[in-house]
Amino acid sequence: MAKKPVRIGIVAASSPYTQEIATRVERLATALFPENPPELVVHPNSFRTHGHFAGTDSERAAAFLEIANDPDIDALWFARGGYGACRMADAALEGLKSAARDKIYLGYSDAGVLLAGLYKAGYSVAHGPMCQDIVRDGGEAAIERALRWLVERDSAALEPSLADGQPAAAFNMITLSQILGTSLQPDLRDHVLMLEEISEYMYKIDRTMHHITAHPDIRKVAGFRLGRCGDITPNDTDFGMTEEAVVREWCDRSGIRFLGRADIGHDAANRIVPFGPQ
Amino acid sequence: MAKKPVRIGIVAASSPYTQEIATRVERLATALFPENPPELVVHPNSFRTHGHFAGTDSERAAAFLEIANDPDIDALWFARGGYGACRMADAALEGLKSAARDKIYLGYSDAGVLLAGLYKAGYSVAHGPMCQDIVRDGGEAAIERALRWLVERDSAALEPSLADGQPAAAFNMITLSQILGTSLQPDLRDHVLMLEEISEYMYKIDRTMHHITAHPDIRKVAGFRLGRCGDITPNDTDFGMTEEAVVREWCDRSGIRFLGRADIGHDAANRIVPFGPQ
Repeated sequence: MAKKPVRIGIVAASSPYTQEIATRVERLATALFPENPPELVVHPNSFRTHGHFAGTDSERAAAFLEIANDPDIDALWFARGGYGACRMADAALEGLKSAARDKIYLGYSDAGVLLAGLYKAGYSVAHGPMCQDIVRDGGEAAIERALRWLVERDSAALEPSLADGQPAAAFNMITLSQILGTSLQPDLRDHVLMLEEISEYMYKIDRTMHHITAHPDIRKVAGFRLGRCGDITPNDTDFGMTEEAVVREWCDRSGIRFLGRADIGHDAANRIVPFGPQ
Repeated sequence: MAKKPVRIGIVAASSPYTQEIATRVERLATALFPENPPELVVHPNSFRTHGHFAGTDSERAAAFLEIANDPDIDALWFARGGYGACRMADAALEGLKSAARDKIYLGYSDAGVLLAGLYKAGYSVAHGPMCQDIVRDGGEAAIERALRWLVERDSAALEPSLADGQPAAAFNMITLSQILGTSLQPDLRDHVLMLEEISEYMYKIDRTMHHITAHPDIRKVAGFRLGRCGDITPNDTDFGMTEEAVVREWCDRSGIRFLGRADIGHDAANRIVPFGPQ
């Protein structure tokens, strides 16, 4: 008897996904697991467009909940980031039913808003590649990493420092900054907090790191690891510090341990960070 | 006997000021008050440059404190914004002595970080034009407004809705967002909170408004008034909402009253908002 395939539900909670990219991901999934390919269930709302968004806030929340609450789906994989998760997060989190507890939620960037709220509420979440990453340079490697982890829990997909065994979490810097003090902020006490950023001015990274490290609850983490900060926006006065110097300085000032680098970022090499105890 | 001139200390707490602009402001002050011009005391550190900043963090904090703690100076006027106040705010606030209580602090934009911390600690602060505004189109009007208020407390300089008499405060949106949850966040309960923004994508304004309105302490304000959001960065998918529609929506969602517009912004028309009871 054939083993039941893993069923992965795909939802765009922020910006719109496309059928073209969905087809590429589907083909790659079939090629990677020829004997028993995972079943990819893309919620049709993911292809809607409403301004910046994959449908209205209600449509995105409904799509998220239909996948999250489906007892026959094993994982919810965010199709992509962009912007818009904060607009539907309250409705998404309020509508969760018991079947939502039995699955893993995988994404990063803007989807971090939902990972935060889900983790706070006790759900299993992980920071890692999303379907749209297939369009990056070498992006098929990111999709393979995500699928091998979703299907087989391949430990080679994990961020290497997780082998230390400490509880962990990972966020985009500005995404974490802009949930601080709200009901979405998770308790990260004793966690190794990994942070990455993309397409920002270095002075904005500095300002965001001030905010994150100034929060008294964030100061209870076990330490920070710095992921990649890609595509820094040039400024007419160069900031004069690297992202590592910025993060080290705010760690020093706030009494947070700087634990080194993390193999995460808005790129094809982005490794997976399951939240919580490893 | 000649009336003692008002002494205004000028400090760059963020990005560097220049002698050329200081001279223009000085000349305008003399022209506006020919009989008894205010004495403008520019702290020399304001002309330093250290990367993005008017000197190192220590130098900016020292300059701020020398002016703030000088009993012969009546007002501390921030020379300009830019970036860097959060890097020296702790040192600046910890070093304040009793003479610092007897003066008013005027600025906006990045200086809002210090206004927040000062207001929280019971000092007299106001959101309004800074010296550097003289370079804007029609910027002399902003400087005249600031000086007439600093020298004579001219009520024509005030944001018009303050005539209603409610306690008020004003901030740049991202500046307020990035102190939420930290020790710099002031208690704005029952205040009319006025917000303005400059040179941001509309989707980032939307995300920032989510953050601000999601904070439980911010929800205790009397209501919001929206200042100007200037120079919105174009996006390849237009956000499809005006700043007023964005702010009205987040007010609706969070149960905060939307009270209308405020005559503040990163422009020459920026009116003055003293914090607290009017």
